Amino acid sequence: MRKIYLIGIGAGDPDHLTLQAAKAIGRTDVFFLLDKGEVKASLVDLRERIIRGYSKPSRRMVTGRDPDRDRTPADYEGTVADWRSRRALVIEEMLVEHLREDETGSFLVWGDPSLFDSSLAILDEVLGRGAIDFEYEVIPGISSVSALAAKHRVPLNRVGQPFQVTTGRRLAEGWPEGVDDVVVMLDAQQAFTAYPDADIFWGAYVSTEDEILRSGRVSEVADDIVRTRSDARAEHGWIMDTYLLRRRTDQ
Amino acid sequence: MRKIYLIGIGAGDPDHLTLQAAKAIGRTDVFFLLDKGEVKASLVDLRERIIRGYSKPSRRMVTGRDPDRDRTPADYEGTVADWRSRRALVIEEMLVEHLREDETGSFLVWGDPSLFDSSLAILDEVLGRGAIDFEYEVIPGISSVSALAAKHRVPLNRVGQPFQVTTGRRLAEGWPEGVDDVVVMLDAQQAFTAYPDADIFWGAYVSTEDEILRSGRVSEVADDIVRTRSDARAEHGWIMDTYLLRRRTDQ
Repeated sequence: MRKIYLIGIGAGDPDHLTLQAAKAIGRTDVFFLLDKGEVKASLVDLRERIIRGYSKPSRRMVTGRDPDRDRTPADYEGTVADWRSRRALVIEEMLVEHLREDETGSFLVWGDPSLFDSSLAILDEVLGRGAIDFEYEVIPGISSVSALAAKHRVPLNRVGQPFQVTTGRRLAEGWPEGVDDVVVMLDAQQAFTAYPDADIFWGAYVSTEDEILRSGRVSEVADDIVRTRSDARAEHGWIMDTYLLRRRTDQ
Repeated sequence: MRKIYLIGIGAGDPDHLTLQAAKAIGRTDVFFLLDKGEVKASLVDLRERIIRGYSKPSRRMVTGRDPDRDRTPADYEGTVADWRSRRALVIEEMLVEHLREDETGSFLVWGDPSLFDSSLAILDEVLGRGAIDFEYEVIPGISSVSALAAKHRVPLNRVGQPFQVTTGRRLAEGWPEGVDDVVVMLDAQQAFTAYPDADIFWGAYVSTEDEILRSGRVSEVADDIVRTRSDARAEHGWIMDTYLLRRRTDQ
């Protein structure tokens, strides 16, 4: 039976790799990579460094072409679903062509595969299509959220209190009900600027060499974050940032 | 200057340890452990196995007595705050007595130090008291939430959707506003039973040898989970369980 690992490799620091992930990499016959056709060269380098460091000499690498994706669609969820299906087709083709019976294939995922990543859903879709059969296992990884909180040395939740993990798109619609602490991923619009009285713990490229951290009351640090973010994005050609937004309460 | 590491060591599988955590353990002169006076012997064993595996021969171990804590208080947050302060005093005393200038001390934390753990707040309280000065660093770990999602092979969020992380106590007050996906920690009352139409992904002792997983529609699996949980708790003398509760939607 073919076996597939979905391996969380952490948020950017090669030392985020767990022993479990390193062992799974060592058991892998074929690594499947998707070329995003983007400029995230530092991430590609890092991923290859991880593979070189822990894989067996006989392992093969197969690179597919990631389907293009409309990054600013009118119908966000429909567009994502369509992109996933096209991606599932690419992956199915790679697996059918390159993963033999009794071999182990791996996909390396930045952060943690359970958090804002589509690989799990795509593997389920490939299985559902029925063209190829395999068993698969998920190896958890250090998420960008854990990495952010560690660098700022802040807990994500306050005692006995809930927190929400959401997107910039959602936060722009209003502060979520019932929580004072909000972790925001995928915010292209700097939705935090609408909440000047909150405290923000912001980070970009967290745990990589290019890491930038900022924190403080939004009213005092928002301009700096917006400018820093824009400059960094221009310099690197891409940005990955995350933040925790914390409403001041009596607690 | 004294240095302190707060090290996330993962959710129970020794292979959850990251390379970063193993390196920090290797640099540690003194490990500070709190004896909870409880029966979680398997966890204590595991922690000592991790220390033995990655620490230098000259490292010392200092064990303090964790203050007792009322587990079913009327004033939950006040009781936790009081317990934290008593714990900060115990830790301050251990540090003053056993961590010399220029030495590195470590606290090992199950899961991830940013998620439902009090160590960060306690270290801040010790620093704030001013009796001892140190710098400290947080090493992120695989959280029980990531471990749970990996074992069930489910994403925590649906495409573009938020999720909330909360406690059983809060969930018992009602389904949180604005989210269809809820991760529940610290649920002593099986609050999920109030939502028969939701899907649950439940796990106890996740990623340890005693791991138990259950999933399905609450109406169909709740009785089994309640019984299994009660039996396991009686057998082990303690239980640590977590779950994802997912409301069915059109998506």
